[in-house]
Amino acid sequence: MSSIFSKIIANEIPCYKIAENEFCFSFLDINPLQKGHVLVVPKKEVDQLFDLEDKTYFELFSLSKTISSAIKKSFNCNRVGMAVIGLEVPHAHVHLIPINHENDMNFSQPKKSLTSEEFESIASKIIANL
Amino acid sequence: MSSIFSKIIANEIPCYKIAENEFCFSFLDINPLQKGHVLVVPKKEVDQLFDLEDKTYFELFSLSKTISSAIKKSFNCNRVGMAVIGLEVPHAHVHLIPINHENDMNFSQPKKSLTSEEFESIASKIIANL
Repeated sequence: MSSIFSKIIANEIPCYKIAENEFCFSFLDINPLQKGHVLVVPKKEVDQLFDLEDKTYFELFSLSKTISSAIKKSFNCNRVGMAVIGLEVPHAHVHLIPINHENDMNFSQPKKSLTSEEFESIASKIIANL
Repeated sequence: MSSIFSKIIANEIPCYKIAENEFCFSFLDINPLQKGHVLVVPKKEVDQLFDLEDKTYFELFSLSKTISSAIKKSFNCNRVGMAVIGLEVPHAHVHLIPINHENDMNFSQPKKSLTSEEFESIASKIIANL
């Protein structure tokens, strides 16, 4: 069965899309830790990040670098943190999160609840800075 | 002033070294979240990960991939998580952490206290699997 991310990539589940290329797809995390929390996902459905073949692995971090710069320009943050955990969805994904404090990246904290207008505004802002 | 990581790379401060190449240096985190918590650091002292020029950035993730496979082989873990936060030391660094649960990567939890014999044994095990 396809992962939820493969369904998003195939446009079967809607998302707030940020970017796409031949190898990767990026969209807003629907349960964000912070405003501007983005996921970058390889189109190939591989569970563990380090099992990706080199080409896709480097494309994933290349797109993550580009998008991080756009997030940094879009939000008032000290830096953009990165995390790969992957215990919930068996499809490798990079979290990019604007942070000011270490706890801003604590995945145990409650997720932010945003309206679709807020998500749309966040996505537009990041895309404009790409 | 040099960062603490530059001093480790210059051998001015001791560490439990894992690997080194022209661009990067890797050693055990002395305040580990889990046994097998490794840092991978560019030799160039740049604060923010995404400000690294591409060559060093990709070398950093290349070495991180190699070391993650060795960590995975060395410890009984579901996968190796990755995080870049960087609010404490202004020298970009990748955390690689063997995890079984999301909370294993929670940086707010108390760090593990290990003896030098334990650190040495952990480093030897990872190096043997490189």
